[in-house]
Amino acid sequence: ILRVEVDGERVGQINGLTVIDMREHSFGHPVRITSNVYMGQEGVVNIEREVKLTGPIHNKGLLILSSYLGKKYAQDMPLTLSARIAFEQTYEEIEGDSASSTELYCLLSSLSGYPLKQGIAVTGSVDQFGNIQPIGGVNEKIEGFFRYCKFRGLTGKQGVMIPKQNLIHLMLDHEVLEAVESGKFNIWAIETVDEGLEILTGVPAGTPDESGKYPEDSVHGRAKAKLRLLMEEAAKLKKALQKDEKDGKESSSNDN
Amino acid sequence: ILRVEVDGERVGQINGLTVIDMREHSFGHPVRITSNVYMGQEGVVNIEREVKLTGPIHNKGLLILSSYLGKKYAQDMPLTLSARIAFEQTYEEIEGDSASSTELYCLLSSLSGYPLKQGIAVTGSVDQFGNIQPIGGVNEKIEGFFRYCKFRGLTGKQGVMIPKQNLIHLMLDHEVLEAVESGKFNIWAIETVDEGLEILTGVPAGTPDESGKYPEDSVHGRAKAKLRLLMEEAAKLKKALQKDEKDGKESSSNDN
Amino acid sequence: ILRVEVDGERVGQINGLTVIDMREHSFGHPVRITSNVYMGQEGVVNIEREVKLTGPIHNKGLLILSSYLGKKYAQDMPLTLSARIAFEQTYEEIEGDSASSTELYCLLSSLSGYPLKQGIAVTGSVDQFGNIQPIGGVNEKIEGFFRYCKFRGLTGKQGVMIPKQNLIHLMLDHEVLEAVESGKFNIWAIETVDEGLEILTGVPAGTPDESGKYPEDSVHGRAKAKLRLLMEEAAKLKKALQKDEKDGKESSSNDN
Amino acid sequence: ILRVEVDGERVGQINGLTVIDMREHSFGHPVRITSNVYMGQEGVVNIEREVKLTGPIHNKGLLILSSYLGKKYAQDMPLTLSARIAFEQTYEEIEGDSASSTELYCLLSSLSGYPLKQGIAVTGSVDQFGNIQPIGGVNEKIEGFFRYCKFRGLTGKQGVMIPKQNLIHLMLDHEVLEAVESGKFNIWAIETVDEGLEILTGVPAGTPDESGKYPEDSVHGRAKAKLRLLMEEAAKLKKALQKDEKDGKESSSNDN
Amino acid sequence: ILRVEVDGERVGQINGLTVIDMREHSFGHPVRITSNVYMGQEGVVNIEREVKLTGPIHNKGLLILSSYLGKKYAQDMPLTLSARIAFEQTYEEIEGDSASSTELYCLLSSLSGYPLKQGIAVTGSVDQFGNIQPIGGVNEKIEGFFRYCKFRGLTGKQGVMIPKQNLIHLMLDHEVLEAVESGKFNIWAIETVDEGLEILTGVPAGTPDESGKYPEDSVHGRAKAKLRLLMEEAAKLKKALQKDEKDGKESSSNDN
Amino acid sequence: ILRVEVDGERVGQINGLTVIDMREHSFGHPVRITSNVYMGQEGVVNIEREVKLTGPIHNKGLLILSSYLGKKYAQDMPLTLSARIAFEQTYEEIEGDSASSTELYCLLSSLSGYPLKQGIAVTGSVDQFGNIQPIGGVNEKIEGFFRYCKFRGLTGKQGVMIPKQNLIHLMLDHEVLEAVESGKFNIWAIETVDEGLEILTGVPAGTPDESGKYPEDSVHGRAKAKLRLLMEEAAKLKKALQKDEKDGKESSSNDN
Ligand SMILES: [Ca+2]
Ligand SMILES: [Ca+2]
Ligand SMILES: [Ca+2]
Ligand SMILES: [Ca+2]
Ligand SMILES: [Ca+2]
Ligand SMILES: [Ca+2]
Ligand SMILES: [Ca+2]
Ligand SMILES: [Ca+2]
Ligand SMILES: [Ca+2]
Ligand SMILES: [Ca+2]
Ligand SMILES: [Ca+2]
Ligand SMILES: [Ca+2]
Repeated sequence: ILRVEVDGERVGQINGLTVIDMREHSFGHPVRITSNVYMGQEGVVNIEREVKLTGPIHNKGLLILSSYLGKKYAQDMPLTLSARIAFEQTYEEIEGDSASSTELYCLLSSLSGYPLKQGIAVTGSVDQFGNIQPIGGVNEKIEGFFRYCKFRGLTGKQGVMIPKQNLIHLMLDHEVLEAVESGKFNIWAIETVDEGLEILTGVPAGTPDESGKYPEDSVHGRAKAKLRLLMEEAAKLKKALQKDEKDGKESSSNDN
Repeated sequence: ILRVEVDGERVGQINGLTVIDMREHSFGHPVRITSNVYMGQEGVVNIEREVKLTGPIHNKGLLILSSYLGKKYAQDMPLTLSARIAFEQTYEEIEGDSASSTELYCLLSSLSGYPLKQGIAVTGSVDQFGNIQPIGGVNEKIEGFFRYCKFRGLTGKQGVMIPKQNLIHLMLDHEVLEAVESGKFNIWAIETVDEGLEILTGVPAGTPDESGKYPEDSVHGRAKAKLRLLMEEAAKLKKALQKDEKDGKESSSNDN
Repeated sequence: ILRVEVDGERVGQINGLTVIDMREHSFGHPVRITSNVYMGQEGVVNIEREVKLTGPIHNKGLLILSSYLGKKYAQDMPLTLSARIAFEQTYEEIEGDSASSTELYCLLSSLSGYPLKQGIAVTGSVDQFGNIQPIGGVNEKIEGFFRYCKFRGLTGKQGVMIPKQNLIHLMLDHEVLEAVESGKFNIWAIETVDEGLEILTGVPAGTPDESGKYPEDSVHGRAKAKLRLLMEEAAKLKKALQKDEKDGKESSSNDN
Repeated sequence: ILRVEVDGERVGQINGLTVIDMREHSFGHPVRITSNVYMGQEGVVNIEREVKLTGPIHNKGLLILSSYLGKKYAQDMPLTLSARIAFEQTYEEIEGDSASSTELYCLLSSLSGYPLKQGIAVTGSVDQFGNIQPIGGVNEKIEGFFRYCKFRGLTGKQGVMIPKQNLIHLMLDHEVLEAVESGKFNIWAIETVDEGLEILTGVPAGTPDESGKYPEDSVHGRAKAKLRLLMEEAAKLKKALQKDEKDGKESSSNDN
Repeated sequence: ILRVEVDGERVGQINGLTVIDMREHSFGHPVRITSNVYMGQEGVVNIEREVKLTGPIHNKGLLILSSYLGKKYAQDMPLTLSARIAFEQTYEEIEGDSASSTELYCLLSSLSGYPLKQGIAVTGSVDQFGNIQPIGGVNEKIEGFFRYCKFRGLTGKQGVMIPKQNLIHLMLDHEVLEAVESGKFNIWAIETVDEGLEILTGVPAGTPDESGKYPEDSVHGRAKAKLRLLMEEAAKLKKALQKDEKDGKESSSNDN
Repeated sequence: ILRVEVDGERVGQINGLTVIDMREHSFGHPVRITSNVYMGQEGVVNIEREVKLTGPIHNKGLLILSSYLGKKYAQDMPLTLSARIAFEQTYEEIEGDSASSTELYCLLSSLSGYPLKQGIAVTGSVDQFGNIQPIGGVNEKIEGFFRYCKFRGLTGKQGVMIPKQNLIHLMLDHEVLEAVESGKFNIWAIETVDEGLEILTGVPAGTPDESGKYPEDSVHGRAKAKLRLLMEEAAKLKKALQKDEKDGKESSSNDN
C-alpha cells in the first residue's frame, strides 16, 4: 500500500524508480521521494544516508548534487539551509546514483515552491555541472512505471524521464511501445537538469544574466530567492532577539 | 510490573505497541513512551538511538519526524530546543518505523502542553509531510492492547489508533470485535497527524492562516509558541547575563 | 579493601549495589559512587561510559537521568555545568539501569550541597519524570549490604532503599528479616525521586510553587540555585576578563 | 557512454588516467575529473574520499595538494572556500596518488577561471612544494588516451602530460611513437605544477614578486584573487545582514 | 637506555612503576612520566590515550584525575589550559589505574612550578575527591625501584610512595627490608593527594580558607594561580589583537 | 626515482631514515620529509597520520613533538597555525618514533625560515622537553645513507645525526668507518633538539632570557616571531574585513 501518486502536481514530491532483482527477472518499481526545506544550518541531508541505509555510490551522487547547489547558488552567499530528502516507505539499502537527478528535482521544487508533475517518474544521475548521465536498468524502470500507471489508469500525461545517452539502450515491451506511439505514455530523454526542470514544472529553469542573476519567475530564480530569504530571515530574527525584553515580549505575542 | 497507564490523560506520555515473536505466536504488547522538552540546543533526541538500542528503520522514522517538525515550525525560526524521547522500561533493541507517529504525538504533547488520553494506544508511521502510513502486525497490536485494558478494566474510552490504510488487514478475534461493536473498545483509523492529534487531545490540531500562523489554542499553535518562547527566553537570559555584576546578583536572588 | 562507608554523611557520595554471579550463587555487593560538579560546558558525564566500561542499558538510564534534570531545572535556563559521576574502585563493565536513581541522588547531593546518609544503599531505576521503577536481584542486594554492614557494625540507621514495586519480590534471609523487625536494619520502599531524596538527606525535596520556583532550603531549590550560580559566575568572569589590562591584574592578585 | 571530452577547453574539468588490470593485460582509461568552487567553510573536499571510495595513498595525495594550496595562498589569509573535486562516472575505489597533480590543475582552473585544454590528459603526483613526482603505468596510460583520441579523431593538439622522471620508463607502441613523431599526438614531460599549468591554460602560472604578490593575469594571481574575493564577499554579506530590517529587504529584492 | 632520574628534582617529571610479567616471575620497572602545561583549550590530554595505547581502566583513572582538578580548581572559573602527560620511552599498551596519582602529581608540578624529588617513585590510584586507593603488585614495584636505585647508587633519599591501604600486602625481600630499616631506602604510605604532594615537593599542599582560597605559596595555590594566569593572559592577548594595526605592529616587535 | 637531496640547503625539507627488512638483511633508506606552515587553525598535522598510514608509536612521537612546541612557544600565546608534515613518496605504513626529532627539525625550519643542510640525515626520538632519545637500527641507517651519498658523490659535508645514547651501539662497516675517519662522512651524536638545530642550520637555537624571550636571530626566536605574526596578521585581516564595503574593495584591489 504505497502512497505513490501518478496524477496532479506536488511541491517537494517526485517519483523515483528502483529495480528489484528476482531469481529470473528484474522489475522496475516506483518509489516516492519527498523533501522539506526549513531554516537552519544542517545543509542538505538525505535521511537514508544518515541512518546508514545507503551505499557509497548513492552518497557520491548526493555530494555531487550538493556541489551542484554550491556552484549554482553559493557564488555570492553561503548555503545556509536545512533540507531533508527521504525515500518514503522504503526499508532496504539504497545504492547507485541513478536517482541523484531525481533527488535534485525534488529539492529544487521545495526550494522554488514550484510543484512537480506527479505523472512523471525520473531516473538519471547528474554531474557537478548539472549534466544528466546514463544509468542502468532503463527498460525495467520504464516498464515498471508503465505497469503501475496502467493499474492506476493511464492519463496520457504520464511517462518516464531518462538520460538522452540511454536512448540507445531502449528495448521496450510491445505494449509500452504502442502506448508511447499512441500518446498514452511518454518518454522524455534529456541532457541537463534545466531541461528536466522545465518538463517537470512547466516553468523556465532560468538562465543567469551577465551579472549572474536568474529571472525572478524561474525555478533557479525562486530557489535562490528562498535561500536568500532563509538567510535574511535568520539574520533578522537573531537581531530581533538581541533587542530589549519588552520589545521581545510584544513581538512574541503576535508571531505564532 | 510496567508503569503503563490506560486511563486519564498525561502530558508527554503515550502508549506505543510492540510485537513480541514467540515460537508459534506473536503477541502485541504496550510500551510507555515519554518525552521531555527544555531549553537547549540538542534538538530532538531519542534516548534509545543515542545508546545504539535502535535499528536503522527506527532511526529513519525519527529523522522523518524531525523533518516534519522543521517543515511545520521552522519556516521563520530555527528549531532551538532540547527534547528527549524514551521507551520506558524496555531493554531490547527497537526496530521498525511503526512508532514514529506515536513518538511525534508524545513530543507534540510536551511542546504544546496538551495532555494525551492514556486509554489510547497508537501505531503508525509518518512521512515528511505528516501523512500516516501503514505498518505491520496490526491485529496482534490491537488484540494485545485489548487484553491489557481488559485486565486493567475496560472503560469504553480505550482503544487503538491505526493507519487508515491498515483497515483492509484487520482480522480480529471475536472477543475484540464484539467489544468494538458494543462500544467497550475502539479502533480509530486515521490518515494524518492532525487527525490523530485531535483524537488524542480533544483539541484542534490547528490549520495555519494565509500568513502561516496557527490558531493560539491549537496543538500546533501552542507547540510553536513554546518553541518561540524557549528561543526568546534563552536570548533574554543571555542578555541578562551580559549586564553588570550588581544587577546580576539581584536578579539571581529572586529566580530559583 | 574498598573505601565504602556505612556511617555518617557525605556530599556527592552514595552506596550503590551490584550483583556478582558465581557458579551456584549470586551475591550483592556495595559499590561507592561519587560525583563532582564544577564550572564548565561538559554536561553530566559518567566516567565509566566515557571509557566504554558500560553497556547500553546503563547508558540509557544515564540519558534518562539527564533528561530528568532538563525537565526539572532547564525550563528557564540551559543546563551549563560540568558534572562527573564515577563508580570508584570498579574494574568490570557496568550494565543495567538499576543504579540510575542512585547516580541521580549522588549528583543532586553535589549540586545542592546536602550530604547523603552513608548508611543507606540504594537501588532502583528512574524514568524521565522522576518515577522509581523496579529492578532485578533485590534480595541479593539487600542481603549483600546487610552482611557488609554487619561486618562493619550495625548502627540501626543502616538499610537499603528499593523501588516500591519490588516489595512483592522480597524473600529475605531469616537473619535479615529479624534485623529489620528489631530495628537493626531498614528497608525503604519508594515511588519517586523526591521520596528518596528526603530519606537520604533529611531535607524536603522541594515542591515548585505556581511560578515554578522551588523553596530555597530544599534539595531542588539549592540544586537549581547552584546551576544558576555556575552560569552567572561564568558570565561574570567572562565579562571581567574583557575589562582592561590593569583591572585584570588587580583582580588576579586577590583571587586565588 | 562516458562524457570525456578531447577537444576545446573547459573551466574546472580535466582528463585523468586510470589503469584497469585484466588477466593478461592492463589498459589505460580516461576519466573526467571536475571541480566546483563556492562560498563556504568546507575547504577542499574530494567527493570520493567523503564516501570512502578512495584508498589511503589517494587521500595522502589529496592532503598534500591541500597543503600546497596553504603554502601558496594562505601566508597572509586563511583558506576560506568550499571546493569539491569528483571523478565523474566512476564506481570503483580510487587508489594511488598518480592523479594528485591532475586534481590540483582542475581545482586551480575553477579558482582562477582559466579553462583547461580538454585534449590533454594528465598523470603525475605532486609534493608539498609543487614538484611533480613519477607514477606507475605511464605507457598504458599514454596508449590508452591515444586510442581514445584516435577513436574520437586525432586533432594534433591532443596528448598526455607526464612527470619528467617517467621519461626513462617510456616504451610505447609503434603506432603511438609514429603519431608523436609526426605531430599527431603529444607527450609533455614536466617537473613542476607551474609548467603544467602553463601548458594546460596557455597562461603564465605566475611568479610572485619580492612582496609575495602574483601578477594579476596569471593562474596563481587570479586564484588568489578569487580566494580573497570569496573571503571578502562573505564578510560583506555578514555585515549587510547585520544592518536593519528595511535595508535588508531592499537589498534582498534586487539580488537574485 | 632509559632517561629515568633517581636524584635531584624536576618540574613536570616523576617516576612511575610498571610491572612486567615474565614466565615465572614478574618484575617492577621504573618509567619516566612527564607533563607540559601551556596556553590553549585542549584540556588535560594523556598522549598514550590519544594514540590508543592505553586500556579503559587507565582512561577511567585519567578522567577521575581530571574530575579532581575540576572539583579543586574550577568552582569559580572554567579549566582553560592545554596539558599533556606522556609515559616517555614506553612502547606497549598501558593499562590499570595504579599510576593515576602519579600522573596527577606530575601535572600539579607543571602547574605549580614546584619541582618533584626524582628519588621517589610513586604508585597508587586516586578517587574523585583526592583519596589514594590501593593497587596491585606493590612488592614487585618496590623491589624493582630498589634494584634500579641500587644500580645507580643509593642516596638514602630514595624510596617508593604507596597507598596506606597496601601496607598489609607488604612482603619485601630481606635486602630491601634491611635497606629500609637502615635508612638507605624509604617507603612512604599515604592516604591523600595532599600528603603525597608534600612529600614530593617539600612544600605544603595548601588548605583552602573559608572563602575557598588556597595559600599563595602552596602547591594548590600556585597551581590555581597558574590556571588563572593562563586564562587571564589569553583574554589580554585576545583584546590586544583587537586593537588597531599600528599598535599591533609595535607590540609585535618587542615580544619574542 | 626519489627526490632526496644530499647537497645544499632547503627550508622545510630534511632527510629521515627508514629501515627495510629483507629476508636475511635489513637496509637503511633515506626518505625526504617536508613541511609547510600557513595561516589557519588546524595545528600540526602529519599527513600520513590523517590517512591512517602511521602506527600508534609514530603518532605518540608526533603528539610529543606537538607538546614540545606548546611548552616552548605557547606560554604566553596559543598555538594558532596550520602546519603539515609529509613523508614524500612513501607508500607503506610508517611506525616507530625514530623520526620524531627529524619531523620537529623540519617544522622548525618552516617556522623559522632557516634552511636545513640537505647533506645531513637525521634519526632520533624526542621527549616532551626536547631531549633526544635512542632509537633502533642505527648502524643500518648510517650505512644506508652513506651508500646513498657515495652513489650521489661524497662531499665531506654529509653524514648522519644520531642520539648520543646510541653511540654504544655503533658497529659500522669498515668502509664507513674509514670515510668518517678521513673526514669524507660524518656522524653527529647529540643530546638535545637545540644541539641538532645548530648543526642543521648553522644558527644558534636560541636561549631564552630571564623574561622568557628568545634572541631575534635564533631558530626559536624566528619560529616564535612567525607564530606571533601568523596570529597577528589573522587578527588584522579579521578586523579589516569588518570595515565598510568601499574600504574593503580598495584594499582588495591591491593585495594579490
Ligand atoms: Ca517572550
Ligand atoms: Ca507568541
Ligand atoms: Ca550571582
Ligand atoms: Ca538565585
Ligand atoms: Ca594577570
Ligand atoms: Ca591571582
Ligand atoms: Ca528579506
Ligand atoms: Ca531577492
Ligand atoms: Ca604585526
Ligand atoms: Ca615580534
Ligand atoms: Ca571586494
Ligand atoms: Ca585583489
